[in-house]
Amino acid sequence: MSRLPGVGRRSAMRLVLHLLRQDESQTLSLADALKTLRTEVHYCRECHNISDTDLCEVCANPRRDHAMVCVVQTIEDVMAIEATQMYRGVYHVLGGVISPMDGIGPRDLEINSLLERIGTQDIKEVILALSPTMEGDTTGFYIFRQIQNLFSVNGKEKVMPKVTVLARGIAQNDELHYADEITLGRALAGRTEMK
Amino acid sequence: MSRLPGVGRRSAMRLVLHLLRQDESQTLSLADALKTLRTEVHYCRECHNISDTDLCEVCANPRRDHAMVCVVQTIEDVMAIEATQMYRGVYHVLGGVISPMDGIGPRDLEINSLLERIGTQDIKEVILALSPTMEGDTTGFYIFRQIQNLFSVNGKEKVMPKVTVLARGIAQNDELHYADEITLGRALAGRTEMK
Repeated sequence: MSRLPGVGRRSAMRLVLHLLRQDESQTLSLADALKTLRTEVHYCRECHNISDTDLCEVCANPRRDHAMVCVVQTIEDVMAIEATQMYRGVYHVLGGVISPMDGIGPRDLEINSLLERIGTQDIKEVILALSPTMEGDTTGFYIFRQIQNLFSVNGKEKVMPKVTVLARGIAQNDELHYADEITLGRALAGRTEMK
Repeated sequence: MSRLPGVGRRSAMRLVLHLLRQDESQTLSLADALKTLRTEVHYCRECHNISDTDLCEVCANPRRDHAMVCVVQTIEDVMAIEATQMYRGVYHVLGGVISPMDGIGPRDLEINSLLERIGTQDIKEVILALSPTMEGDTTGFYIFRQIQNLFSVNGKEKVMPKVTVLARGIAQNDELHYADEITLGRALAGRTEMK
């Protein structure tokens, strides 16, 4: 128990004593739920999002726009974008970003499967929704280059999809002068016209 | 002393004892500096930024682009934008935003003087660099409407300047899934193409 994140020795002891004290059936059903968690939960074969089924709810939904793929790092990012209710396309979960410091290279991520999707399906836009960090930018640029290579080598009958990145700028309700210089500079450079 | 912000009774006492203990000339020079602060510091007659002189350093600089005016709420915002080293135009400090809850209307801000500048000078772009809050947006929209009115009533020989707003989106180094839904939604809507 004490190996769980955020659970120290003392809280582990408290949890164990609680599990012993409560009704036996409750502890057994928790044990079953944990087993199910590891054996039944799968990842979508298409986008690598978490899923009960072979194809996740988003990928299986015919009303989503399958020509638009949003590339994210984690399942949490899928949830965050779904919560905006502003996205009607599908996803592709990389599982992280390229980070030589942590020993994570392109092969440790779902980049090849993304390129395969782009190469074989009719995709019009790839949205790179990665972290606004150096690692995120590097990964995005790597993917962009790989997509370019894919379309410069393979046949020219297919048009390369548009590759877009999320807008950088001031976050909603932030104080302007608390924004860091890079964010403020980017917000200034990316300013939009009022109509 | 204890009336200064962040200075409680005990720290006030500590400060006073320090002032008494140190060399007399130092305390007197502090007193002079405080007097100078209130009597010598002025606000620029053009942009209402803080200034030693009648016209502030930015407004007086012929190498700045005087056809581009960045509208901000406070002097802190001027400093933050200057720190990005990405802006070569001039400023206009409103002194706040419209906020009916706090009893602040358009007349309490430097909006009329802004409209006068726009009406009489040759300004090509007005950048509204206001807080990404409801009050900031309201104030920006109010100013935009006032500028439109200015050019629909007065003669048509002058072209209305372009009015732009800072980009909204994900702040640099923020975690994507920690961004609020509005920010993430705006970043998605305002995505830009990679080239």
